[in-house]
Amino acid sequence: MRKVGVIGLGHVGSTVAYTLVTKGIADELVLIDTNEAKCTAEFYDLLDSLGRLDTYTKLSMNDYKALQDADVVITAFGDIKALADGGNRFLEYSFNCQQAKQVGTALKEAGFHGVLINISNPCDVITGLLQHYTGLSRQQVFGTGTFLDTARMQRAVSMSLDQNPHNIAGYVLGEHGESQFAAWSTITVQGEPITEIAKDQHLELSELDKAARGGGWLVFNGKKYTCYAIATCAAKLLQAVFSDAKLACPASVYLEDYGCYVGYPAVIGKNGVEYVHRLELTEEEKKLLDKSALMIAQKTKEGLL
Amino acid sequence: MRKVGVIGLGHVGSTVAYTLVTKGIADELVLIDTNEAKCTAEFYDLLDSLGRLDTYTKLSMNDYKALQDADVVITAFGDIKALADGGNRFLEYSFNCQQAKQVGTALKEAGFHGVLINISNPCDVITGLLQHYTGLSRQQVFGTGTFLDTARMQRAVSMSLDQNPHNIAGYVLGEHGESQFAAWSTITVQGEPITEIAKDQHLELSELDKAARGGGWLVFNGKKYTCYAIATCAAKLLQAVFSDAKLACPASVYLEDYGCYVGYPAVIGKNGVEYVHRLELTEEEKKLLDKSALMIAQKTKEGLL
Amino acid sequence: MRKVGVIGLGHVGSTVAYTLVTKGIADELVLIDTNEAKCTAEFYDLLDSLGRLDTYTKLSMNDYKALQDADVVITAFGDIKALADGGNRFLEYSFNCQQAKQVGTALKEAGFHGVLINISNPCDVITGLLQHYTGLSRQQVFGTGTFLDTARMQRAVSMSLDQNPHNIAGYVLGEHGESQFAAWSTITVQGEPITEIAKDQHLELSELDKAARGGGWLVFNGKKYTCYAIATCAAKLLQAVFSDAKLACPASVYLEDYGCYVGYPAVIGKNGVEYVHRLELTEEEKKLLDKSALMIAQKTKEGLL
Amino acid sequence: MRKVGVIGLGHVGSTVAYTLVTKGIADELVLIDTNEAKCTAEFYDLLDSLGRLDTYTKLSMNDYKALQDADVVITAFGDIKALADGGNRFLEYSFNCQQAKQVGTALKEAGFHGVLINISNPCDVITGLLQHYTGLSRQQVFGTGTFLDTARMQRAVSMSLDQNPHNIAGYVLGEHGESQFAAWSTITVQGEPITEIAKDQHLELSELDKAARGGGWLVFNGKKYTCYAIATCAAKLLQAVFSDAKLACPASVYLEDYGCYVGYPAVIGKNGVEYVHRLELTEEEKKLLDKSALMIAQKTKEGLL
Repeated sequence: MRKVGVIGLGHVGSTVAYTLVTKGIADELVLIDTNEAKCTAEFYDLLDSLGRLDTYTKLSMNDYKALQDADVVITAFGDIKALADGGNRFLEYSFNCQQAKQVGTALKEAGFHGVLINISNPCDVITGLLQHYTGLSRQQVFGTGTFLDTARMQRAVSMSLDQNPHNIAGYVLGEHGESQFAAWSTITVQGEPITEIAKDQHLELSELDKAARGGGWLVFNGKKYTCYAIATCAAKLLQAVFSDAKLACPASVYLEDYGCYVGYPAVIGKNGVEYVHRLELTEEEKKLLDKSALMIAQKTKEGLL
Repeated sequence: MRKVGVIGLGHVGSTVAYTLVTKGIADELVLIDTNEAKCTAEFYDLLDSLGRLDTYTKLSMNDYKALQDADVVITAFGDIKALADGGNRFLEYSFNCQQAKQVGTALKEAGFHGVLINISNPCDVITGLLQHYTGLSRQQVFGTGTFLDTARMQRAVSMSLDQNPHNIAGYVLGEHGESQFAAWSTITVQGEPITEIAKDQHLELSELDKAARGGGWLVFNGKKYTCYAIATCAAKLLQAVFSDAKLACPASVYLEDYGCYVGYPAVIGKNGVEYVHRLELTEEEKKLLDKSALMIAQKTKEGLL
Repeated sequence: MRKVGVIGLGHVGSTVAYTLVTKGIADELVLIDTNEAKCTAEFYDLLDSLGRLDTYTKLSMNDYKALQDADVVITAFGDIKALADGGNRFLEYSFNCQQAKQVGTALKEAGFHGVLINISNPCDVITGLLQHYTGLSRQQVFGTGTFLDTARMQRAVSMSLDQNPHNIAGYVLGEHGESQFAAWSTITVQGEPITEIAKDQHLELSELDKAARGGGWLVFNGKKYTCYAIATCAAKLLQAVFSDAKLACPASVYLEDYGCYVGYPAVIGKNGVEYVHRLELTEEEKKLLDKSALMIAQKTKEGLL
Repeated sequence: MRKVGVIGLGHVGSTVAYTLVTKGIADELVLIDTNEAKCTAEFYDLLDSLGRLDTYTKLSMNDYKALQDADVVITAFGDIKALADGGNRFLEYSFNCQQAKQVGTALKEAGFHGVLINISNPCDVITGLLQHYTGLSRQQVFGTGTFLDTARMQRAVSMSLDQNPHNIAGYVLGEHGESQFAAWSTITVQGEPITEIAKDQHLELSELDKAARGGGWLVFNGKKYTCYAIATCAAKLLQAVFSDAKLACPASVYLEDYGCYVGYPAVIGKNGVEYVHRLELTEEEKKLLDKSALMIAQKTKEGLL
């Protein structure tokens, strides 16, 4: 049976929980939040849904011990107050570094030994801290990272070409944050390199880049958080773990070269990150990735002190 | 193809929209909200999900004309500020009466001629106003009403007996609000009258009543709104319309006896409310229903002035 | 993770397997059939589906050892040749008694200790034999029994009243076979006793009884097997086990009073049959149940020799 | 609302129908087969499922007039007797050419004006005949073609590399039959050309080609038909039409260059084939495609006489 924990029930965590319940993905779901009233609210809102769903999910709340035999835990804690002033994901840095320590330690004490998927921002840094504090392997712990940013790039490209986003392949790499970049050399539309399509159709890739990021900010600015796309990404990664799908997804994975977590193509299965897919990047892309990763590595070190 | 409009993108409306997208229920979805920035935010958050879903939903925003050939419109406008101080659904009365006029008129002008499912509170009153302003038939317009409250009763009863909420049948009747009541004479557990089970197992039905309502307040108090259960209810009603399911559901339906909308068992199909199921109630239940309905009728009249 | 075995890949077993794959219900699925070529065919037909599905199911075949840690096994072996001449479910009796011994013994040797849901006919008898040979508890082993026949009764009643089958509650009891009967005293339409509706609307319950059974024979006669409704029933029971749903379903469950398995209302959860719901039947219904159960008990004893 | 017709209820057509019902894809489904008993059997087997499903599909049978306002019709007629001796798809040629005329004419007379997706074999030829006899545009009519063969190639490649089939992109082109070929120059694994991976990992592409086709024959030989993968393919194409998904899929589409239908990359939306994606093929691949298409063109002409 599929047992999941969601830690942190802000907009993102509760949307993840709802997704797992409404689509019948989780058989058992443990909700955890330090805000007892909020946790209770989400618990009952989900319970009240069960009579109108064909599937059932066994719900419990604020019980770390129940995570001892969970298959997957999703972490989505955050500091919504810090974000009130703007959308830099590093505004949550201090708060979430502390949270990572608390949550990671609590998971370790609970004996959790499954796969941990982190959403909390700054995603790559916090994923690194959670791997450290939980004592789980680097394979078992990964972050949603640029899986979301890649979806946004697919959306932006697909809109400009009147295509389905699934017709677009390739990757946004690096930090789930400001230093990320669309690795255009890896991106294709129906198998054709976008660099060639751009020439033919006079598309400005830099405009698409803006459209991808801009969409994210339009969401944030309009509602002060984002939840649906990120929850959809997290649910997809979680399902790949459950069924050992060996599904190729960019995610925040540990790269030995940099000694930190960074958005990069991975293959997701029952052990978490089954392996990492080595890309052939252009020189410029390599530099962008180096720069992004070095920043993450530095911030991860600082976060551990 | 299934074309849906959602009007009002607060927590409820946007959760309805997400549910329709993430479960592949709607083929085309028109999002409408007077807050352009919020509408844009939800639009992009949903668009960014499409690359991670197997199903596709064609999205557009703030275009009433696009509703001309919509199959179903769901109204979920509201006044979140009015609710800040507490959970009485009548706090939204003045604001939503005005909204009902604007939205209903706009739908009429757009030539919308499908089925309208209203969630906006006070649900029964606003459903009546929307029926009036849209000029749609009383069959085509109905509200979620006590479909949600019945789900909460099922949840409360099922928890006290360690059963699945689907094992509980029967109805909460009347206003989706303070004057509602569980019609215990209609409620069974695996086919057995709950009144008999209560005797055998020393269950206090009044405690269950409290547990049903209390759960609703626990949700509201913990997050200042409720969204998942209500969105699940709305999606289920909408699906019954699409497939002409003739599904029995309590909902806010027009009862000739009272001249207003009130929570009562209905059969939902492609025309909306296909018919209303006459219940045999106890004398006490009849009085409670009369009282609840008379209040709704009065408030509906006032709301139209 | 959800691990399932399906034993016997005739039309029923393979439709069950397809259902679990196409709806993403099983994470891991072990297919078993003595006909190696048939098993291979179903294995590849399902594998070839995975590239067109959003969910993934890990497939393997003809490996009893892989069932050691399966959560649920569904048995659907049968003797299609014996059925060529007609639809009496006892035509498969001799063959399936032997199969039950082989399969049950093999499951025991493999160390399978999950829940077993039997479809093989005569369902109640074979369920009893499988319980015996597997050494699993009477709680862990149950059959689809009259869960299907009840669905057919719901279909027949709903068609005659232009209602959704979900609006019909109540039970067909006894053998999944000729001695079964609709327990009309338990059957309601939107909560109203069907016996009263029948009076009001001049419905002949005996005609509905015929329509329920007749539908089954129309299926059998037209394609020489039935598969979709039974697979749907099996999938629903299986999902109730996975999520510990405590869902009320008639099924073939062990009744101490009769010392055998028989179609009766049960509550299904992670342990299989969580408990049996005692019905208040009419005298006539009790006699019909006695007669049906005694026959099953006798045939079960004979089948064990 | 989504209205679908399925014409021809052999193993393929009935599995398509079941898929549409069990996954809640169709709101209304019209089943058509010249074998009245078989049609009735499938009709009731599906009806009997509805009481165990959360979604509802309105079913009717053998009524061409009901297709007048259908959104999509799927044709899956065939000659199972002709296939008894082996798996050459041209064994059904004579029978299905006649069927195409009857079915196409009947659809035209019924006033059907939606999208037609053909599965009947030889798929490319019969798709051409159906386009002719229905009088629908070449955009509105297309066949499943090499969408299935591509899925099999993805399966074979993914198995050899322990990857998810979704990680494999690219196309099998040409006839859905013996002259088809994997266009290796278009095929990538996680974005990397398979020709390079083959060099690195000493994969024999010709072996993979055999594995792809061989899997198809293993299915056919073991059960004398294939149904699950093809039904999954058809359902995916149909969903792309419903939601105007602009989804890139190889399918049997009309190519002006050849004057016939042939398996080639297309973009599927509400009008059927929204457009065709021009591939850069190797010289050898071009020759193979020419050869395959010329044969189809010839057989299509002959089939029309």
